[in-house]
Amino acid sequence: MSEAQDYRYIGQRTIRPDGYDKVTGRANYGADLTLPGMIWGKILRSPYAHANIRSIDSSRAEAHPDVLAVVTHQDFPDGGSRGSNQSMNVLADKKVLYHGHAVAAVAAHTEAAAEAALELIDIDYEPLTPVMDLKTAMAQNAPLLHDTMFTSGLAQDPTTPSNIASRMELKKGDIEKGFSEADVIIERNFQTPTVHQGYIEPHATTVRYDEDGQSMIWCSTQGHFDVRGSTASLLNIEHSNLKVVASEIGGGFGGKTTIYLEPVALMLSKKTGRPVKMVMNREEVFKASGPASASRSKIRIGATKDGTITAMEAHLAYEAGAFAGSPIGPGCMTVFTPYDVENQYVEGFDVVVNKPKVAAYRAPGAPQSEFACEMVINELADELGIDPIELRLKNAAREGTQTMYGPKLKAVGLVECLEAARNSAQYKEALAENQGRGIAAGFWFNIGGVSSVSINMNPDGTGTIVEGSPDIGGSRASMQMMAAEGVGLPIESFKPLVADTENAAHSDTTGGSRTTFATGMAVVEAAQDVVRQMKERAAAVWNVTPDQVDWKDGVAINTVGEDKLTAAQISAQAGRTGGMITGRGNISARGAGPSFAVHMADVEVDRETGKVDVIRYTAIQDAGKAIHPGYVEGQYQGGAAQGIGWALNEEYIYNEDGLLENPGFLDYRVPLASDLPMIDTVIVEVPNSFHPFGVRGVGETGIVPPLAAVGTAVSNAIDIRMTELPLSPPRVLKAIRDA
Amino acid sequence: MSEAQDYRYIGQRTIRPDGYDKVTGRANYGADLTLPGMIWGKILRSPYAHANIRSIDSSRAEAHPDVLAVVTHQDFPDGGSRGSNQSMNVLADKKVLYHGHAVAAVAAHTEAAAEAALELIDIDYEPLTPVMDLKTAMAQNAPLLHDTMFTSGLAQDPTTPSNIASRMELKKGDIEKGFSEADVIIERNFQTPTVHQGYIEPHATTVRYDEDGQSMIWCSTQGHFDVRGSTASLLNIEHSNLKVVASEIGGGFGGKTTIYLEPVALMLSKKTGRPVKMVMNREEVFKASGPASASRSKIRIGATKDGTITAMEAHLAYEAGAFAGSPIGPGCMTVFTPYDVENQYVEGFDVVVNKPKVAAYRAPGAPQSEFACEMVINELADELGIDPIELRLKNAAREGTQTMYGPKLKAVGLVECLEAARNSAQYKEALAENQGRGIAAGFWFNIGGVSSVSINMNPDGTGTIVEGSPDIGGSRASMQMMAAEGVGLPIESFKPLVADTENAAHSDTTGGSRTTFATGMAVVEAAQDVVRQMKERAAAVWNVTPDQVDWKDGVAINTVGEDKLTAAQISAQAGRTGGMITGRGNISARGAGPSFAVHMADVEVDRETGKVDVIRYTAIQDAGKAIHPGYVEGQYQGGAAQGIGWALNEEYIYNEDGLLENPGFLDYRVPLASDLPMIDTVIVEVPNSFHPFGVRGVGETGIVPPLAAVGTAVSNAIDIRMTELPLSPPRVLKAIRDA
Repeated sequence: MSEAQDYRYIGQRTIRPDGYDKVTGRANYGADLTLPGMIWGKILRSPYAHANIRSIDSSRAEAHPDVLAVVTHQDFPDGGSRGSNQSMNVLADKKVLYHGHAVAAVAAHTEAAAEAALELIDIDYEPLTPVMDLKTAMAQNAPLLHDTMFTSGLAQDPTTPSNIASRMELKKGDIEKGFSEADVIIERNFQTPTVHQGYIEPHATTVRYDEDGQSMIWCSTQGHFDVRGSTASLLNIEHSNLKVVASEIGGGFGGKTTIYLEPVALMLSKKTGRPVKMVMNREEVFKASGPASASRSKIRIGATKDGTITAMEAHLAYEAGAFAGSPIGPGCMTVFTPYDVENQYVEGFDVVVNKPKVAAYRAPGAPQSEFACEMVINELADELGIDPIELRLKNAAREGTQTMYGPKLKAVGLVECLEAARNSAQYKEALAENQGRGIAAGFWFNIGGVSSVSINMNPDGTGTIVEGSPDIGGSRASMQMMAAEGVGLPIESFKPLVADTENAAHSDTTGGSRTTFATGMAVVEAAQDVVRQMKERAAAVWNVTPDQVDWKDGVAINTVGEDKLTAAQISAQAGRTGGMITGRGNISARGAGPSFAVHMADVEVDRETGKVDVIRYTAIQDAGKAIHPGYVEGQYQGGAAQGIGWALNEEYIYNEDGLLENPGFLDYRVPLASDLPMIDTVIVEVPNSFHPFGVRGVGETGIVPPLAAVGTAVSNAIDIRMTELPLSPPRVLKAIRDA
Repeated sequence: MSEAQDYRYIGQRTIRPDGYDKVTGRANYGADLTLPGMIWGKILRSPYAHANIRSIDSSRAEAHPDVLAVVTHQDFPDGGSRGSNQSMNVLADKKVLYHGHAVAAVAAHTEAAAEAALELIDIDYEPLTPVMDLKTAMAQNAPLLHDTMFTSGLAQDPTTPSNIASRMELKKGDIEKGFSEADVIIERNFQTPTVHQGYIEPHATTVRYDEDGQSMIWCSTQGHFDVRGSTASLLNIEHSNLKVVASEIGGGFGGKTTIYLEPVALMLSKKTGRPVKMVMNREEVFKASGPASASRSKIRIGATKDGTITAMEAHLAYEAGAFAGSPIGPGCMTVFTPYDVENQYVEGFDVVVNKPKVAAYRAPGAPQSEFACEMVINELADELGIDPIELRLKNAAREGTQTMYGPKLKAVGLVECLEAARNSAQYKEALAENQGRGIAAGFWFNIGGVSSVSINMNPDGTGTIVEGSPDIGGSRASMQMMAAEGVGLPIESFKPLVADTENAAHSDTTGGSRTTFATGMAVVEAAQDVVRQMKERAAAVWNVTPDQVDWKDGVAINTVGEDKLTAAQISAQAGRTGGMITGRGNISARGAGPSFAVHMADVEVDRETGKVDVIRYTAIQDAGKAIHPGYVEGQYQGGAAQGIGWALNEEYIYNEDGLLENPGFLDYRVPLASDLPMIDTVIVEVPNSFHPFGVRGVGETGIVPPLAAVGTAVSNAIDIRMTELPLSPPRVLKAIRDA
């Protein structure tokens, strides 16, 4: 885009600061820390989906010579949050609520010994009927997961417990009036399965508990400050006594924003006086980390013949897993945001089932609801005989659109994305037999939040950027570039550093696509603070006022003389002009950068087997301003790949007893490189007015459109309206045969 | 002192934050870091005191299967400071200049293999005549260490090279007039030997050189920022590409303020692509680290009969070791500072000899010169028949005294120390046969310098103090206490942290007794910054102005209402009021806190063997304000113990070829606990006007008085004026027999 020329560093494809370590294998991930005297912890997990725990007898395990300690829920200390949902998810209390639910943990000298000792813990279970889907869970007289869970926002008697944790409603305009104005109304039901983020690196941690208050957690996480906060709260530790270090992370996608092993390892370390390492295997990751909600939805959309949408209505139910807290909120809030439509209504339910407690997964809640909406929009376009891009352009959200969830949109890039789709090479490609094309839009808010940054200028004029946001997708590069742009020094002058919880001030978890936006703003603020001080110091040297000093390309210029001082010169004598120069940026970013995407999928269906091949794919998204285009494209491609997997193959398969049957990458099929075509990308840049460089988060929106783009492409290829994901070979084949 | 009551936390004897780790053995020192793939480096050292290097042939070593690399001076990279004195001390270039001078280094798979491979390096030396003492070195036509070293400040032809690196002169008043007014004049010559700091932990480092600019040094140092600066300069690396981590330190006393192993290890790591560990043994520490200067001095002091000193004159020469740079400057500047005398003259020489380049040692340069002065003052007291305390009181430096080196003194505590000595229990003790008492004063400037501190407030209202000053004597406790005092929260709320060079901004080396003073001021500034922000945030919550908010004991009080908010409450909602609260203190402390001490030693001499036992000892010193009295007393006792060792036993013994004969703790005798009585301490507190809490540095002054206190006590016990240290049994016995 033309703005790129205004920047010296931003917009370049610079060398990735994390690249060398990663390609040489030197980067240290969650399982890579070993401490002297370290022992291993392993978790005993429930063989039932739903059962009462009558008793736990760990005496045989404790008596084993290799075993150093056993912990259960009862070991959560007084003063901590024992009995909270989080504590009960970390170690079950009186009930197990899903297959694989943690019940007890053993520490032993070796990993094998710890694993073997799990069998020596005797647990007396009383099996209960598992509740494995939304329909069963929401039924009258359904078996209850929690006897004391009463529903908020529900019409029914608030004193009767149910599996519905909460109900919500959003309204805009007059939905009945809207439908009454429609010439065409489409109503469909959809279902999406439980899916997992599929990060390559399992959860892993090494901890050391210290009596004198210098406890330490090393772990793979998107937010080490939140790990500190949650663990400190569970275990009644002051923040200053618990240091958390974020290792390099081998994928998170939202799934590494909560804690599983860390408090358990710390309790084992406390009991044994030894450092403890715990590493999940893949089976544990699938069974007992936080997948994304399965959903059911009903969408009803009405439009006039000319394509003006007059009413949109959604009823959504999301699985929370074992404890309340699905992303039904964002599901409801995003479902219709791409459309500037007067009359909208959404109802949503958060429902517990006997599955692992869900966690965030890229744009949490949005793919499920927007999938349903976009499928109906495409059907509507067909019905009206209007090109799906034109239908969307006619109704597209734009600057000034009143959202259902609150604010009016500022400048956004949906129209530009749709126009880019219309102009794309793919859109001009003809389709062959058994091929279909699908287009879908997607929306994600992006968030702001708290970020804290210091830029410490060194005596030689280089600097360190000390920030607290784990780098899950290139944020170190972005910070380096924004600091370089802000101070006016070369990119290589700045070393970006994700500091531990002791060396940096609290920063919110890397999620919500907030980091390049909000931590980036903190970097810009810190860079401005550096420049301000540089000018002050130069002014002091020249005996002028700071406003008589200009700053350009890292050089102070005396506007009332001819003197110049470089950043290196000013830094070298900082000790003589008042101390070192450090820039500070502590922000709480309230605005964010709403982001729209438009994806286009071309598929070919093998009518013999039902197998779907994605043959062409274009991901178009508004980045606001792409700081590092290479990383931005990677985010677009990664989101598309994960969304394609969600659409085509991924799902948790439970048997009738509620036991997970496919906890591994052989049976839970994520797309491999060989499954996908090259995913073309188009970076649209409509600057975000909340950010000094116009940045919008780019990490999440890209997973929203693929479900409906692929779903529509498959439907078009076989000429059958598909409504349930995944579109795996058996399901597609059955649809073809049924039709 | 009465002021203690004004403080809530300062002045308490709190639990030492470094204590638990140290007593449990968990603290990690210089040799305690092991990295994956790490190899070992060892240094080949000169067997000669003075020789030309004709050639180095490392081919046999390089061919050995266990050897991975060999480096010599020629491996210093282009663009670095190859050929500088520091580079030539780290690895000799064309000449070796002392026994043990580093010539080459080998990296091998094991420490033993590296050690063994040293013998495979063939060096052709041309031995030269060693220059081992000041008299020889300063003589006309002395053999020269450096053909191109010309003397600055010297009367002689500046184009004739010599071993005299520089000459300096300080003057005040009219020295001839002063002596002409004297009734009594005493003139004596003194000598002190080369001594070592005797830190228990040898120099040790583990490094990792990285092509992509993420090199790392872990080492035992008093100043990791200076390690970074020096190493970066030698090896032409940008500061942002070199991280230095200061390990816990097992003693430094000034000796760990320079680099020996670090650049060598980094060059070996660069050549091999492997992390490298290097650890000196004790012999290497003695031979090739930086001891303290041996000295010769002539002191002449004149006084009137009533004890008014009219003139003081000193001629001092200090050994620099192999390269220019003894502490002759501070030696000259401190020699007469305890005395408010109108006419003073000092001449000093910095002289190279074939011994290791000296380094700082507690109050560097001051013990040697002040020893000589105080011996003469005590003799003068005898001669005049005036009590030595009274003589000092009559002439004592005090507020307004014009120093020789520049400033007029602000309020200082010498008079108070002398009065405390007069009131001490020891002073009232009678002496028995063969016993003697000696009193001496001591002075050290203390310095300020650059310190950078952040206080990061956590969401639970606790905080981390991120500072960059290695803790060599309790500074973490002091920082914690000053932060607590400044913010008004309990000491336990703050975790003090010596951050690495990436996480903190540059701070000068811990030395000059600057840390509790200057880094403490930065902590106070950062604490004030925290309080300012706390008040702003509370004001925002209450919708009042910050000046309508009071702050007391960690609580904000709305002065126009009745609301209160604790620091924890404000911190918990900091994200909603604008971001986290972090306090910044970047200072360059110009003023310092001149500090005086008075020591009293009682000794008993065994006339049969010449052995001296210190039987009573009192160390009195002005701390300005003792932040943590326990650590302050430890500094007084440690300084006294080291000074007693200097006075009684410690010395480098060279043979006639210039080879060190006693490089080990068996033959180089430092005082053991069993050699010393309990050292009584008196903390005098005359607040330092440059510091908000009145702090003066306390680490160094305490090593100044013991030499003359013990020297005088021995002289009095045997009734012979001793003038040469150490007062070891052979020397004392010889003096007794000669007399």
